[in-house]
Amino acid sequence: MKVKSLVGLRFKERPADCLIDSHALMVRGGYMKYVANGIYSEFPILRRVTKKIEQIIREEMDKIDGQEVLFPVVMPAELWEESGRYTSIGSELVRFSDRNRSNLVLGMTHEEAAVHLVREYGRSYQQYPFMIYQIQRKFRDEARPRAGMIRVREFTMKDAYSFHTSQEDLEDYYQKCYDAYNRIFQRAGVPEVVTVASDSGMMGGSVSHEYMLLNEVGEDSIVLCTACDYRSNMEAAKNIVHNEPREQTQPLECVETPDCKTIEEVCAFLKSDITGSCKAVVYQKNADDSFVVAFVRGDYEVNETKLRNLVGEEIHPADITADAPLVAGYIGPYQISDQVTYYLDLSLQGIDSLVAGANKEGCHYIGLNLARDLGQAEYVDIAKVKEGGICPCCGKSALTIKRGIEVGNIFQLGTKYTKSMNMQYVDADGSLHYPVMGCYGIGVGRLAASICEAKHDEYGPIWPISIAPWEVHLCCIRPDDTETKAVADDLYEKLQEAGAEVIYDDREGVRAGQMFADADLIGVPIRVVVSPRNLKENKIEVTTRDKTVQESVDLAAGVDYVLGLIRELKNIHNVEKLN
Amino acid sequence: MKVKSLVGLRFKERPADCLIDSHALMVRGGYMKYVANGIYSEFPILRRVTKKIEQIIREEMDKIDGQEVLFPVVMPAELWEESGRYTSIGSELVRFSDRNRSNLVLGMTHEEAAVHLVREYGRSYQQYPFMIYQIQRKFRDEARPRAGMIRVREFTMKDAYSFHTSQEDLEDYYQKCYDAYNRIFQRAGVPEVVTVASDSGMMGGSVSHEYMLLNEVGEDSIVLCTACDYRSNMEAAKNIVHNEPREQTQPLECVETPDCKTIEEVCAFLKSDITGSCKAVVYQKNADDSFVVAFVRGDYEVNETKLRNLVGEEIHPADITADAPLVAGYIGPYQISDQVTYYLDLSLQGIDSLVAGANKEGCHYIGLNLARDLGQAEYVDIAKVKEGGICPCCGKSALTIKRGIEVGNIFQLGTKYTKSMNMQYVDADGSLHYPVMGCYGIGVGRLAASICEAKHDEYGPIWPISIAPWEVHLCCIRPDDTETKAVADDLYEKLQEAGAEVIYDDREGVRAGQMFADADLIGVPIRVVVSPRNLKENKIEVTTRDKTVQESVDLAAGVDYVLGLIRELKNIHNVEKLN
Repeated sequence: MKVKSLVGLRFKERPADCLIDSHALMVRGGYMKYVANGIYSEFPILRRVTKKIEQIIREEMDKIDGQEVLFPVVMPAELWEESGRYTSIGSELVRFSDRNRSNLVLGMTHEEAAVHLVREYGRSYQQYPFMIYQIQRKFRDEARPRAGMIRVREFTMKDAYSFHTSQEDLEDYYQKCYDAYNRIFQRAGVPEVVTVASDSGMMGGSVSHEYMLLNEVGEDSIVLCTACDYRSNMEAAKNIVHNEPREQTQPLECVETPDCKTIEEVCAFLKSDITGSCKAVVYQKNADDSFVVAFVRGDYEVNETKLRNLVGEEIHPADITADAPLVAGYIGPYQISDQVTYYLDLSLQGIDSLVAGANKEGCHYIGLNLARDLGQAEYVDIAKVKEGGICPCCGKSALTIKRGIEVGNIFQLGTKYTKSMNMQYVDADGSLHYPVMGCYGIGVGRLAASICEAKHDEYGPIWPISIAPWEVHLCCIRPDDTETKAVADDLYEKLQEAGAEVIYDDREGVRAGQMFADADLIGVPIRVVVSPRNLKENKIEVTTRDKTVQESVDLAAGVDYVLGLIRELKNIHNVEKLN
Repeated sequence: MKVKSLVGLRFKERPADCLIDSHALMVRGGYMKYVANGIYSEFPILRRVTKKIEQIIREEMDKIDGQEVLFPVVMPAELWEESGRYTSIGSELVRFSDRNRSNLVLGMTHEEAAVHLVREYGRSYQQYPFMIYQIQRKFRDEARPRAGMIRVREFTMKDAYSFHTSQEDLEDYYQKCYDAYNRIFQRAGVPEVVTVASDSGMMGGSVSHEYMLLNEVGEDSIVLCTACDYRSNMEAAKNIVHNEPREQTQPLECVETPDCKTIEEVCAFLKSDITGSCKAVVYQKNADDSFVVAFVRGDYEVNETKLRNLVGEEIHPADITADAPLVAGYIGPYQISDQVTYYLDLSLQGIDSLVAGANKEGCHYIGLNLARDLGQAEYVDIAKVKEGGICPCCGKSALTIKRGIEVGNIFQLGTKYTKSMNMQYVDADGSLHYPVMGCYGIGVGRLAASICEAKHDEYGPIWPISIAPWEVHLCCIRPDDTETKAVADDLYEKLQEAGAEVIYDDREGVRAGQMFADADLIGVPIRVVVSPRNLKENKIEVTTRDKTVQESVDLAAGVDYVLGLIRELKNIHNVEKLN
């Protein structure tokens, strides 16, 4: 391919609407084009990258006995009604009607389609285990698409579904898939991707992991222990708090705290420590708008995912109107209205004497003892882990919090879908059982963008050779010089004959600086420069995009040198070599 | 891959709802599963076939300098409003709203997205010509999905779009694509696909061709000349009629034709030849329900596509109510209401004396002379070609009509989309112009099903090796026999090591007949059978699915023999060898 024929424009200016580097570079480099909110077209360069990622994924899925299938993008509502998700999923699920007024949905994930496809096939225990996967477009009507290809509404995803006759067999296979995912990220050039325990969310099931590329632009918070191997998504991270007994029990006393609306203001006014206070965070259930209050220690934040799992239904931040059974700013667990559901976080356990709202305008209690004053107090885990928190694995106060981009996830689904959709198999003894399922996803475009985010400099992406659009970027400086052009043309031909993927810049009238800037944006790992000046000494210039190699190579040895360099770079991502 | 692990069930009974063989076989063979009307999932066997077809298409598109891109499935309505198709296309185009009430459509074709992607790139004449293509899912809300994968609502399609600075350049490229398509069908094992001139329909543009696989289950009528190379889709076929002067001009006379509602009844009643009659076929414009009458010679049928193109807007068969300005059954061109638009077909030209409706209940004219009685008569081509009709190319009465399945199409679009979407380029002299476009489509799933329809017997598909799910189907008869199993296992390993794609049936307790029935349904071109009986003579059995090869081969020579046979079969589809 020649640069002059490559469809897509490259330009210098950073687009104003691109908040993260990968997005800006992929727009500037002619990788993608905005079509609508969270919807993009892929130019040829990006399509080359995504095809390579797809191929790596395919190979690794096939290695663990995956069989590629294809589910439709458009599915009938009935299928989603069977699983219950037609109603349980909110507006991310696009629903529409066809010309015959049949209700349809756009696939945002394909558990239903997977169960539907193999419901008959999986009637005998002898067919198990098996795994099917597809690489297909999906649509999720995200409220806030952002960060270019990282959070979009339409995307290409590899989604895999495994079926088993026992939890043990699922766990065995889950481990195989866990390893296959590590190989995929290693081969794609990001072996630094880490796995974290995660919350299963709307997928159902219990055990699940996310694959995280640690990066400050990530929208996920990841909890890591600096003392042991513990890693978890913030949503799933267990929060441990030890409250040392500090005060003698005090009598319960109502005091005036005028104009103190936040717990910080109350504690400042009362000159008490925030770690001895009880903060209220109020939500409402989506279904009936009834109030749910989460009480956490004043210096903690509520983990909404944990709270939502506890409540068992969708909730949203409350709008406390005048007729609500709550006094905004003065809400406390003691004598709270019985129209309200409340939860006490574990961070409140063991504090003898609390500052808490008095459920009365302008008043707080001091000396509140939950066990004594509420009669009985049950504590649940609904707070977010904090930097320096206690590791649930090794017990040390060594937790740290980082940002990450989720590039893959794997779930042990259990029987959620097989039960709801009535998929059963006949066991050897003739008895009927529901198979247990696992599901495994990787977003192709997001992975491409994440790798770009992790591997770039100010001039462009630095693609790992395994997913780079081409392996070699050949620049002919001064193609108007007959000899230079002939040498470059010859290299182009010979490298391609030897199987190298080459993009060739032989544009006339383009300055060397412009050629190099374009090459930087295309991000190909090996650059070969042929110029009249180098040719005087019978040399060509070979550099790598990451600047680790910058060699002047004898022209006669040029092809072999470049081919050797390709092999060397490929070895870095070679799973067999490293594992 | 082992048959025992292959996801998908095979069964014997022909499903009642499958009207054509390919559909029945692909359901019976575990290729596809019905999800909703016109929506299917692909099992692993079919996905292997469609992936091979996709790869052949990719290679041929790349050979003619195509660059693969990816457009979204979901597009904003605005994009389709730009081209005018948001309103001009009927209910086949799925329209829906997202959570923010933005109007979206599901892509059924991607001209708009293509122009959108390259509108800026194509600003300079120096960038031309270029071609971009994608392989992507599409959704078209067909009124009547039918014939399994042949006419569906959701499908995978390769769609390509080329851009040019002149009609001549488009025509050059169009010819390249025309040839590439022939190579694709040849490589996919159906070199018998023919091209026919076609009507461009909703795509706009002028010249277009369809690639037809002649087959009686096809829903398209194709006009072929048995004397020359003329081929056309019925919709686009020019109809030529020579009316020999037979009668002297007669005076116009109104006669009673009681209870004669059809032209056949009228002619029988009047004892006149139907070739001297004028038949009326009535339509209404979709926009305002006003009437459009097509007059053709009594023995011809109206070609609605030609009529629609002439009218320039959508029409539908008329509902003639009591208050209509037409007398159903007695409609004629003479003294017809001026509220009605009418057209006279060329088949009426040159008849001096016609039988035609009198626009009066129970009455017809005889002796109608259009030129004389209407003052002036203009004739247009709105009738369907008939068997034995005159070839517009060689002039012989040698036309024949066959059925065909459309497996691809190519269009010269002209500037329809670039003009409406305001894509312009700056020419060398600084002037602005609209680029001319071509577009080129192939439905992947439809091609797979069509090939199955063209290549099958009662037992299953007979896949060409180039797109077969595997190349070799290895059957181990009596895998419980240790020696037989060891020999078959060894063959499986050696063939795979040599690069052959092998599906291996080593199921225990399955009769040979069942194994062969399954193999027939999987349709792999080469079958290798290892059985205790053959092994006694140190032989294995090698047959082809089409029965042209049935050999007993020495075990020691088995691998080489099979590899040779693979090469031989592949050569049949080798474009370079044949062209």
